[in-house]
Amino acid sequence: MRQRNKPWADDFIKKHHQLIISDPITYKSKWQALFKNNNPIHIEIGTGKGQFIVGMAEMYPHINFIGIELSKSVIVTAAQKVLESKQENILLLNVNAEQLLDYFSENEIATIYLNFSDPWPKNRHEKRRLTYKNFLRFYEKIIQKNGKVILKTDNRKLFEYSLVSFSQFPMKIEEVNLDLHAEEDIANVQTEYEEKFAAKGQNIYRCIASFK
Amino acid sequence: MRQRNKPWADDFIKKHHQLIISDPITYKSKWQALFKNNNPIHIEIGTGKGQFIVGMAEMYPHINFIGIELSKSVIVTAAQKVLESKQENILLLNVNAEQLLDYFSENEIATIYLNFSDPWPKNRHEKRRLTYKNFLRFYEKIIQKNGKVILKTDNRKLFEYSLVSFSQFPMKIEEVNLDLHAEEDIANVQTEYEEKFAAKGQNIYRCIASFK
Ligand SMILES: C[S@@+](CC[C@H](N)C(=O)[O-])C[C@H]1O[C@@H](n2cnc3c(N)ncnc32)[C@H](O)[C@@H]1O
Ligand SMILES: C[S@@+](CC[C@H](N)C(=O)[O-])C[C@H]1O[C@@H](n2cnc3c(N)ncnc32)[C@H](O)[C@@H]1O
Repeated sequence: MRQRNKPWADDFIKKHHQLIISDPITYKSKWQALFKNNNPIHIEIGTGKGQFIVGMAEMYPHINFIGIELSKSVIVTAAQKVLESKQENILLLNVNAEQLLDYFSENEIATIYLNFSDPWPKNRHEKRRLTYKNFLRFYEKIIQKNGKVILKTDNRKLFEYSLVSFSQFPMKIEEVNLDLHAEEDIANVQTEYEEKFAAKGQNIYRCIASFK
Repeated sequence: MRQRNKPWADDFIKKHHQLIISDPITYKSKWQALFKNNNPIHIEIGTGKGQFIVGMAEMYPHINFIGIELSKSVIVTAAQKVLESKQENILLLNVNAEQLLDYFSENEIATIYLNFSDPWPKNRHEKRRLTYKNFLRFYEKIIQKNGKVILKTDNRKLFEYSLVSFSQFPMKIEEVNLDLHAEEDIANVQTEYEEKFAAKGQNIYRCIASFK
């Protein structure tokens, strides 16, 4: 997500270290204690500006949400939204998903959301896609039995790739929607990208997969 | 496929019994002998009016094609196309795919094409879908190791269903195309339904899957 550079982001992040956790390694296998409850933990990887995670946290107050976002200048916007919402079931991590295993222990996570992940269309960048097998291995490690990975994207190539990658891992594909917004019965919290692309008439794809 | 009733279809089928095989049970595990070669056998289930199978047979002369079509009044049109084409690598069976195991033995088939299969949208008709698990079991029995099942359809719901059904069987999903006609590098012989739906601007979906 391209963003203006925000010189105040560092200070903001330091100031809000109880929301944007500065030492996430400390909390490995202790996240529920930090949330002060035993509710299941859902993580979103590439949280962007936070519309999805705040909407989900409002809709599901008995789930703990952790948003993982690499970009400082983006995560501060997400943090502002969380603060406005006053939801206490959200934390944010300004880290790279490549280091997931440093922050979460086995079975610590119930659901992983991948929303409009960067598509990295070139073959030589395959390893950067968040549905590349190395990432799936991380997810498998930290996710509970029957936990779900839920991918939404407007990017046809990334979606085609991800279905194959899930299947070959092998993961089980539980549900596929090739036009999510045509489904009236599905409760769906939209992300920023989702709103933007859907408004342009783009199909929104979703897949729910689990480990075997 | 709705078709005018053709009173001459019975006579036509009898007359062309060397093309529309009247006693297919006889040839179980002997199809290559009937084709008088050792070339791999590909079957299409629900051949319709035959445009795909004739186009494929012309493009791949060293593959034997068998078209399976339930409807008499439709298979005669396919037969006429085969006769016009003078291709000798095509046979037709006027049978129901539910009886596949009566006509083919283990490992006899290299590839199975499902083109624009009837979608049977109602849940209570799930068992009739050609990608329902009972059918997948038949395909698994007759297909060779690493043989492929290739599904093309314009029907979103059938495609979503089929991806899940393949994955749960479990089969391996090898390739997914969510807009086949946008792919310039893929050699693609179009079926009658495909031409019709693509002309209306419908997406054409394709999935290639294999058994584990
Ligand atoms: C295309 S944006 C989508 C944002 C948001 N999910 C939405 O749907 O509106 C992708 C986001 O993922 C973040 N991102 C990409 N790779 C990441 C990684 N390896 N770890 C954490 N965040 C990542 C980017 O910084 C960017 O904000
Ligand atoms: C929607 S049409 C598609 C025809 C053709 N494949 C095309 O793409 O133009 C489906 C065809 O499958 C045939 N069919 C449906 N169920 C079948 C079954 N169980 N066994 C054999 N043929 C079947 C129907 O008679 C019909 O001709």
